[in-house]
Amino acid sequence: MSIFVTGVAGFVGANLAARLLARGEHVVGFDNLSRGSLKNLAKIRLHPSFVFENIDLTDLESYRQALSDAHASRSIREVWHLAANSDIPAGIADANVDLRDTFMTTYNTLEVMKDLKIGTIAFSSSSAIYGDHGDRLLSEDTGPLLPISNYGAMKLASEGVISAALESHLERAYLFRFPNVIGVPATHGAIYDFVSKLRAAPGRLDVLGDGSQRKSYLHVDDLVNAMLFIRANARDKLAYFNIAAADEGVTVRFIAEQVVDTVSPGASIHYGRGNKGWVGDVPQFAYSVAKLEALGWRPRLDSAEAVRTAVKQIAAQMVEE
Amino acid sequence: MSIFVTGVAGFVGANLAARLLARGEHVVGFDNLSRGSLKNLAKIRLHPSFVFENIDLTDLESYRQALSDAHASRSIREVWHLAANSDIPAGIADANVDLRDTFMTTYNTLEVMKDLKIGTIAFSSSSAIYGDHGDRLLSEDTGPLLPISNYGAMKLASEGVISAALESHLERAYLFRFPNVIGVPATHGAIYDFVSKLRAAPGRLDVLGDGSQRKSYLHVDDLVNAMLFIRANARDKLAYFNIAAADEGVTVRFIAEQVVDTVSPGASIHYGRGNKGWVGDVPQFAYSVAKLEALGWRPRLDSAEAVRTAVKQIAAQMVEE
Repeated sequence: MSIFVTGVAGFVGANLAARLLARGEHVVGFDNLSRGSLKNLAKIRLHPSFVFENIDLTDLESYRQALSDAHASRSIREVWHLAANSDIPAGIADANVDLRDTFMTTYNTLEVMKDLKIGTIAFSSSSAIYGDHGDRLLSEDTGPLLPISNYGAMKLASEGVISAALESHLERAYLFRFPNVIGVPATHGAIYDFVSKLRAAPGRLDVLGDGSQRKSYLHVDDLVNAMLFIRANARDKLAYFNIAAADEGVTVRFIAEQVVDTVSPGASIHYGRGNKGWVGDVPQFAYSVAKLEALGWRPRLDSAEAVRTAVKQIAAQMVEE
Repeated sequence: MSIFVTGVAGFVGANLAARLLARGEHVVGFDNLSRGSLKNLAKIRLHPSFVFENIDLTDLESYRQALSDAHASRSIREVWHLAANSDIPAGIADANVDLRDTFMTTYNTLEVMKDLKIGTIAFSSSSAIYGDHGDRLLSEDTGPLLPISNYGAMKLASEGVISAALESHLERAYLFRFPNVIGVPATHGAIYDFVSKLRAAPGRLDVLGDGSQRKSYLHVDDLVNAMLFIRANARDKLAYFNIAAADEGVTVRFIAEQVVDTVSPGASIHYGRGNKGWVGDVPQFAYSVAKLEALGWRPRLDSAEAVRTAVKQIAAQMVEE
């Protein structure tokens, strides 16, 4: 039996695959390497229980054939669908990016699962499905769901088709609503951007927005822990959970200061105006994790600790590169 | 200036277009006639202020060209997007039906609106976005939104991309969450099915399910009234409303009895088992219309009156056909 991971060469996919392999699972991973990278798979690429294929999930026929072959060779018992666009502004500039990479990958995954009679899916959803609720506490049952980015819209659409598929061919589904996730291998995000900027110009860090934007951050190690914990312990046919640290998050200002302290102590930080970094960015939210805590899970690192850890890891990663 | 209506040859589209023309508007209507019919446009087809074109909205390039031409000839000030799959079981058997006809029509409509800089959309959403909440009262802000049909999932996805587009190119959006809508020209639905069955075999009516399924029904005249009322009176940039009669709905048993009384008095009615008619059907729901009432609108007909009126209209329509 094997576990199939889409987007396996991405940030979360690579971390999940490594953890599954460490637990003794056989892992089949697909990625089209458009945003993911073989570099992210360096530590597991040669693992005897890991099979990687460069497949574009938006090409339904090649997806179907490749997964059918993998399934025939080592029966796939569940699908972890993590492939998605990870560049939210890119999806605002061109809606087709999230249509194709965030939604059609999900749609095609369900089509192939239906054909191959694979009944269990675990899906990386997002806090972006909620849209902008101001500082209202967002629980899993909060409505309305009016996203402000195509990324959020296409994650919501993905949840919708998974939910509908449970009425026909799916047996179980896990929807993980991710917060901002940080750690290595990093490819984008505020910490990554700040480290890059300071390495290019060590004396000064320019920050989009006024730095007051507050978000919750989770370290990728905790994220993988949470997903595996939910997979093992949730009993609902459709299990949907916010995943986050149970704190009020940290500000962009805090992140900028941590990066400066680590990478270029003494650099000056210059802030812009407003509390939105870019169109479609949700300025702040507070994420209820009561449901996940009731299931028995807590993260090892809170938002501030996750940021401190990730800043050190990302700075080290970028020195290596 | 003109108003553009998609799905204009469908049940709601034809009624809306007729009403807009009666108010003195110029109307441009597209339909691919896959489910809509020119017969539905019989009364308005030759109206001097009505332009009809047979266009498939899923073909983005022909859609863009045709709407661009219409816009150049008589500036389009807003889009009423009603085109969608209307056969929910068909979309459960083949997910591609709702992907294409319910979602991609919305996606392409937004793409074309972006190109042509048309800022206002009115959209026919659905109670199906809510999924199965048992007998819980569904307000516009109810969550979670976990649909149980691809139709519901693709209406939810459509709401999502419209909401996201307000952050970039759209100026205003109206989301109308339809209940079950009845009236003429009817093409499907329980009343239509029951009348058809009784005309084929006048002595006996077989009903799927035990007849206890309860739903709210709105007459199409009231639906069009409500949409125009919301369009005229709602002030939010994103105005989203449940539209329904403020009652507890009527049962399938009530509908069957009304149809028998009108079409074939004395026929026997035979019920099946269970309270779901087919996979993906939501067994019952109660729809809150407090938001719409607060805006100042009420329907002329409640669910029972709407059913009685529609039964007579549909029976008469089918005699004519």
